Amino acid sequence: MKTPEALRDFGLGWLDGSGPHADIVLSTRVRLARNLQGHRYAAQADAGEREAVYSSVAGMLETPVFPGGASLLRMGELDVHTRRIFLERRLVSSDLLGRQRADQPSAGAALLVCPDDPVSVMVNEEDHLRLQSLVSGLSVMEAWSLVDRLDDGIGGDLSLAYHPEFGYLTSCPTNTGTGLRASALVHLPALVLTKEITRVLEGLERVGLTHRGLDGEGSDFVGNFFQISNQKTLGRSEEDLVEHFGATVTTVIEKERRARQVLRGAGPRTEDLIWRAYGLLRHARLLTYRDLMELLSGVRLGVSLGMLPSPRVNALNRIIIFSQAAHLAEAAGRELDASERQAHRAQYVRRVLQGENGSPTTDPGS
Amino acid sequence: MKTPEALRDFGLGWLDGSGPHADIVLSTRVRLARNLQGHRYAAQADAGEREAVYSSVAGMLETPVFPGGASLLRMGELDVHTRRIFLERRLVSSDLLGRQRADQPSAGAALLVCPDDPVSVMVNEEDHLRLQSLVSGLSVMEAWSLVDRLDDGIGGDLSLAYHPEFGYLTSCPTNTGTGLRASALVHLPALVLTKEITRVLEGLERVGLTHRGLDGEGSDFVGNFFQISNQKTLGRSEEDLVEHFGATVTTVIEKERRARQVLRGAGPRTEDLIWRAYGLLRHARLLTYRDLMELLSGVRLGVSLGMLPSPRVNALNRIIIFSQAAHLAEAAGRELDASERQAHRAQYVRRVLQGENGSPTTDPGS
Repeated sequence: MKTPEALRDFGLGWLDGSGPHADIVLSTRVRLARNLQGHRYAAQADAGEREAVYSSVAGMLETPVFPGGASLLRMGELDVHTRRIFLERRLVSSDLLGRQRADQPSAGAALLVCPDDPVSVMVNEEDHLRLQSLVSGLSVMEAWSLVDRLDDGIGGDLSLAYHPEFGYLTSCPTNTGTGLRASALVHLPALVLTKEITRVLEGLERVGLTHRGLDGEGSDFVGNFFQISNQKTLGRSEEDLVEHFGATVTTVIEKERRARQVLRGAGPRTEDLIWRAYGLLRHARLLTYRDLMELLSGVRLGVSLGMLPSPRVNALNRIIIFSQAAHLAEAAGRELDASERQAHRAQYVRRVLQGENGSPTTDPGS
Repeated sequence: MKTPEALRDFGLGWLDGSGPHADIVLSTRVRLARNLQGHRYAAQADAGEREAVYSSVAGMLETPVFPGGASLLRMGELDVHTRRIFLERRLVSSDLLGRQRADQPSAGAALLVCPDDPVSVMVNEEDHLRLQSLVSGLSVMEAWSLVDRLDDGIGGDLSLAYHPEFGYLTSCPTNTGTGLRASALVHLPALVLTKEITRVLEGLERVGLTHRGLDGEGSDFVGNFFQISNQKTLGRSEEDLVEHFGATVTTVIEKERRARQVLRGAGPRTEDLIWRAYGLLRHARLLTYRDLMELLSGVRLGVSLGMLPSPRVNALNRIIIFSQAAHLAEAAGRELDASERQAHRAQYVRRVLQGENGSPTTDPGS
C-alpha cells in the first residue's frame, strides 16, 4: 500500500498556493486533446491499435521533445492503490483507469509524466493524447504555455490528426478545433452566502463558460467549490480562448472579493459561521469528505477574511488532497473501511489544524 | 444594573455539584404549599388581605422560628433586574413577579430568605406561603428536612389552614393534602440517544410522577434536561411521598447510567457528537440559550463518560445559570439586545471552557 517513491509528490505542485489569487483560485488546468493520424479513436480502437499509439509515445521518450526526460507509466502495471492516488490528484481520469470496467485499465492506457514540469499526458483516454498542466492559483497563460510547448514538441515528432478548416480532430466533436479546455477550481463562499452565486454562474454561461462541482460533471456543489471551464473549443485561437477564460474568471474573483468585503462588515454572523466550522474541524472525531469540504469552506473563508489566524492556504489545499480515501489509506499503510476512514480523516485534519505538518508521510492512524 | 451585594450568591448553593449523582441530577427541590387561616387565597385576596399575610410573615422574622435570622424582600421594592435574577435562579415564580401583569408584583408579594440554609418562602404567590428548598444532586430527604423544619416553625407560630380529613388546604385542589411537591432536574442524554426515554417517561407517569422541560410546564425538552416531580399530594404522608419520589428517580438514574455504558462501548459516534458539541461551544461567536443547552448536553455527557477531561460539573452548572439574559446583563453592567446577548453568552462560555473562572463578577463583554 505504498506509492512508488519517485511518484510520491507528483502532481502536488499547485498545493503550495504560490499562484495569483490562490486564496480563491485553488488551481488552473489546461488540457489539449490530440489524436494521431492513421489510428482509430481510442474508444473504437482494438488492443493492437491502442498499443501502437502507446509505442508512438514511448518512441519520443528519449528524444529532444522531452529535454528533461519523461516516464511513461502503464496504468495496468501500477497497483490499484497507486492508480487511485493519481485519480485523487486529478492526474488521470476514471476513464483512463477503466473504472467503469471493474477497475481494469484498457490496453495501452498510460500516463506520461515529466519530472520538472507540472505537465503530463494521458495516453489512450477518450483521445489518443490528452496533454495537461496543473498549476497554482489563476495562472492561465502559464498553464497554457506549458501544454503549448509540449504540443509543439509532440506535433513535431508525431503526425497529429488536423483538418485545415476544423482544426484538431477529436473523438468527441465538442473538443474539435483547438482541443483546448481551460479550467479553474475556484472557491466562492461569499458569493454563495450573499446569494449572488446564481447570477454569477448564469453570467458565465452567457459568455461561453460552464461550471460544475468539485468532482466533475454532474457532481453537486460541495463546500462552495466550483470548477469553471470553457465550453467552446472551435472558431477561436488557443490564445484567444485562454485570454477570454482568464479575463472572465478574473471578474468572478473580483465579485467574490467584493462579496467578502460585504461579509466582513455585516456583523457577527459570518464570524460565528467561520469559528463554528473551525471548532468542528478542530474537534470532530468522524468526518465524511462532504462534511469536511463544507467545514473547510468556512475555515478557508475565515483565513482569507483575517478572522482566523491559521492555517495557511497551502495547508488547506493539502487537506483537500490528503483526506481523500486513497491518500488516507496510503498514510495508514492499509485499506480503511468507511468508518475507519472517517476517523482517520478527522484525526488528520485535527493534526493539521493543531499546526502539525500535514505531510503525506504523517500517519493519521496513529 | 447590580443585584444588592448580600444577594449576589443567593440560591446558588446547588451549583457546586456536591450532592449525590450530581453528574445526572442537577438539583432537587421540595416545596410545601401553606395558607393562613382567616384569609382568602392570594388570587382572591384584595391588597389589604395580602398585606395582612405579609405582616404575619414579617412578624416572625425576629422570633426563634428563624434562629439564624431571615430577610423578607418585597418584590415591588426590588428593581426589575434583581427580580429577573431571582427568576433565573428559580427562587421566585413568574406569578410572584406579576410578569403576566406588566412586570408589576402585586401587593404583599415577597420572598423570605434565610442566610444559612438553601430555603426560602414565597409570600402571596398562588398560596399564601410556598416553602421551598433547593439542593445539589439527588438529595430528596435533605431537601424535605429543610422545608419540614421550616414548616414546623411557621406552623407553631401561625395558624395554617388545615382540615383533619383533607390535610393542608391550598388554593389549587391538586396541591391539597401534604401540599408537597418534590422535583428533580435531571439530565438524560443517554436515554435520549438510545431512544429509551419515551418508555422511561411513560413508566414515571404510571407511578404518579410527571415530567416537563427545563423552563416549567409546557416547555419542550431542551438539551435533554427534564424536571421530574410528583403529581399526587394527597392520601400519603410527606415522608412516603418523598421516599417514593427519591426511589423512583434513583431507578431513572440507574437506567441513564446503563445507557451511558452502552454508549461508551458503541463506537466512535458518541465521541464524535461530544467533541463536536465541545468544539462549537469552545469556538462559536453567537449562542442562543437553546443552542447552548443542546451543546452543553453533549459536553456534560462527555465529561461524565470521561471522554472530555473538563470542565467539571460545577462549571457546567454555572453556565446554565450565568448565561441567562439577566445574569449576562448583570455581568455586562447594562441591558443587552438579543444579538449582543448571543455574543456575550458565547464569549462567557468560551471563557469557562478555557478554564477561566466563570464567576458572576467576570464580565463576558470585555
